[in-house]
Amino acid sequence: MNFLNEIAQRFPDAVSFAPGRPFEGFWDTSLVHDYLRRFERYLKEEKGYDDAEVRRVLFQYGRTKGIVHELIVRHLEVDEGISADPESVVVTVGCQEAMFLVLRALRADDRDVVLAVSPGYVGLAGAARLLDMPVLDVVGGPRGVDLDSLTSVVREARARGLRPRACYLVTDFSNPSGVSLDLETRHALLDLAEREDLLLLEDNPYGYFSADGVRLPTLKALDARRRVVYLGSFAKTGLPGARIGYLVADQSVADADGRVGLLADQLSKIKSMLTVNTSPIAQAVIAGKLLAHGCDLYGANEREIVVYRGHLRRLLAGLSRHFPPGGGSGVSWNVPRGGFFLVVNVPFPADDKLLEISARDHGVLWTPMCHFSSDPAAARQIRLSFSLVTEEQIDLGLERFAALVARRIG
Amino acid sequence: MNFLNEIAQRFPDAVSFAPGRPFEGFWDTSLVHDYLRRFERYLKEEKGYDDAEVRRVLFQYGRTKGIVHELIVRHLEVDEGISADPESVVVTVGCQEAMFLVLRALRADDRDVVLAVSPGYVGLAGAARLLDMPVLDVVGGPRGVDLDSLTSVVREARARGLRPRACYLVTDFSNPSGVSLDLETRHALLDLAEREDLLLLEDNPYGYFSADGVRLPTLKALDARRRVVYLGSFAKTGLPGARIGYLVADQSVADADGRVGLLADQLSKIKSMLTVNTSPIAQAVIAGKLLAHGCDLYGANEREIVVYRGHLRRLLAGLSRHFPPGGGSGVSWNVPRGGFFLVVNVPFPADDKLLEISARDHGVLWTPMCHFSSDPAAARQIRLSFSLVTEEQIDLGLERFAALVARRIG
Repeated sequence: MNFLNEIAQRFPDAVSFAPGRPFEGFWDTSLVHDYLRRFERYLKEEKGYDDAEVRRVLFQYGRTKGIVHELIVRHLEVDEGISADPESVVVTVGCQEAMFLVLRALRADDRDVVLAVSPGYVGLAGAARLLDMPVLDVVGGPRGVDLDSLTSVVREARARGLRPRACYLVTDFSNPSGVSLDLETRHALLDLAEREDLLLLEDNPYGYFSADGVRLPTLKALDARRRVVYLGSFAKTGLPGARIGYLVADQSVADADGRVGLLADQLSKIKSMLTVNTSPIAQAVIAGKLLAHGCDLYGANEREIVVYRGHLRRLLAGLSRHFPPGGGSGVSWNVPRGGFFLVVNVPFPADDKLLEISARDHGVLWTPMCHFSSDPAAARQIRLSFSLVTEEQIDLGLERFAALVARRIG
Repeated sequence: MNFLNEIAQRFPDAVSFAPGRPFEGFWDTSLVHDYLRRFERYLKEEKGYDDAEVRRVLFQYGRTKGIVHELIVRHLEVDEGISADPESVVVTVGCQEAMFLVLRALRADDRDVVLAVSPGYVGLAGAARLLDMPVLDVVGGPRGVDLDSLTSVVREARARGLRPRACYLVTDFSNPSGVSLDLETRHALLDLAEREDLLLLEDNPYGYFSADGVRLPTLKALDARRRVVYLGSFAKTGLPGARIGYLVADQSVADADGRVGLLADQLSKIKSMLTVNTSPIAQAVIAGKLLAHGCDLYGANEREIVVYRGHLRRLLAGLSRHFPPGGGSGVSWNVPRGGFFLVVNVPFPADDKLLEISARDHGVLWTPMCHFSSDPAAARQIRLSFSLVTEEQIDLGLERFAALVARRIG
């Protein structure tokens, strides 16, 4: 992704459909002070801590699994209908650390591999790369995960002597494709995981940003057989600058000495060797936001949901205007039901070289899908992110994008 | 360390010489608000940022190498006489992440090993374990590092086909031994590193806590040949709850494509796959403390230095009182010139079983040195930490410890 960052820096005036960053319009620096104070009050009033204990919790070294696990559990109950044991929660330095912890625990030796729906989030591949752990691609397709592909990848890996330990996916409004799993696919995927003895690593950063108000249960909410490790992020729903994520790992596992305990406790041991504990001050910021909204994070994002919905509509309307069906442009796109991203198919290769031309000559940035998938189809696909742009930028950016397309097909 | 945490929880009323945590007596929750505001002001007044830019820096995803690197460089100049390029600094989630990043970069395959002065900090061994990277022990001894041992460990490893990449050590008031390198040893170690083509990983969490006011230059301050990767921690000098560390890695290295760049930039790529970036809110807290003291962190710790000095004196006086020289107790100890720790030699095995007895029957906790070293001598050694206890607790704890000793040798 270095090239992408570099090009964004070189062309700061370009309209950018590139970054998957949350909307900034409702931020205020006073929020962080308010959130910290709310958490202090909670420690005193709900937990009964005295001043010295409050200072110790906020400022001293702390519990490796985190200090806001009870509030995260409340939030999961309120927002997701997930009943989690607080001891099964590990608070992490963003969801990225959560991914690393799980992969490290699953990797005993060279035979252990992880599967990932493709195209998929590059962070998973990055964490796996640090562990020299192979990632096997599973076809995503229009339903979010192709179950036949998943089954055959698992079986072929086993036939080669490998141990497929888990499959990673974003259930709702995936990055980069914007695709979600329908309810039937969710149930079928859970059945498949049980049948094939596989964990599912469910990452859910965008689930609240449904454009049509329809929200399906997460895999974890349907997970009666403890097949799902839930990877939580507050980067889009809380504040990215807190760098707080978490995981719910309620599986029973045996450690090296044969003692059975929670997977969360194994992950905590790994975390103690990686980052020791997550900053309690940063955790307090997110906890304060949860407390400010009765642990209803969906409700806390009401205004953002409206913004993202408006952006998606504007983007879809603009695409239809510039590239009308039957207009011969050869340009098409998918219609996500929410999230931050959609994918545009173009009738020419869309690589870093074209991105450079797009930035320099047309003043518009986007992300080549080849960064997310080695599938040949991805070579002619573009990810447009609509979270951080304004509606005016969407219109301007699409005009510029249409000029690029006209030049390429003209 | 799980047993140690567990026993501390089971005996909360015991006097504890166990945790290497900083003194809490000067903390105030208003500090975090003050520090955050100071950093906001700095962004506006010194960097010329407008409100939206300030919000973005604090709340949005940010630079992987961190946002407080310029202030860290100022602090290194003021406090250490180190002139560092801000681009060579990577801000990390505590020093633990810094260790992991360096080891990951140094580990290309199974032949790469790291050396560590023994007895030594368990966090280094933990980070290495996550990477399945062997740690070869180097004798510490009374001068902090035995250079003959270091040379022979390097050469023997090479003879076995291994690649010793670096040697980790705490230069000042080491954990667990309290020992510091004298100036001559520092120079000789740098020469050795050059001669043997080795990096030195210098960890410096306790350097400011000199009891007699004498401060020697860090290896990094003497590092004319870029042999030192400096591992910085603000856990003891800033606030543990920010979980902010950093490293200075100004070495030139070639990447996989043969392009030469800063080691810091390679470490930044690894960090992007591990934690993405360090919480800018947590970084701002530390930056605010630096700003509050003109980046003079030594000065900022004036009161703490006095406290730790007093604790060390009280502990040494108490030990002399309970175990007078020639009194036949068989108990002796080293006399560190500062820091958080000293080591007591006892004439009986001091293991987890004895610790359990000590906690249950005598109400005093300490750390068996066998957790830090496999050397047989460590089996009869105890680490006493004097940072978090009060002077009254030191007296009471030593009385209880003396009762334990009397029972064991009686």
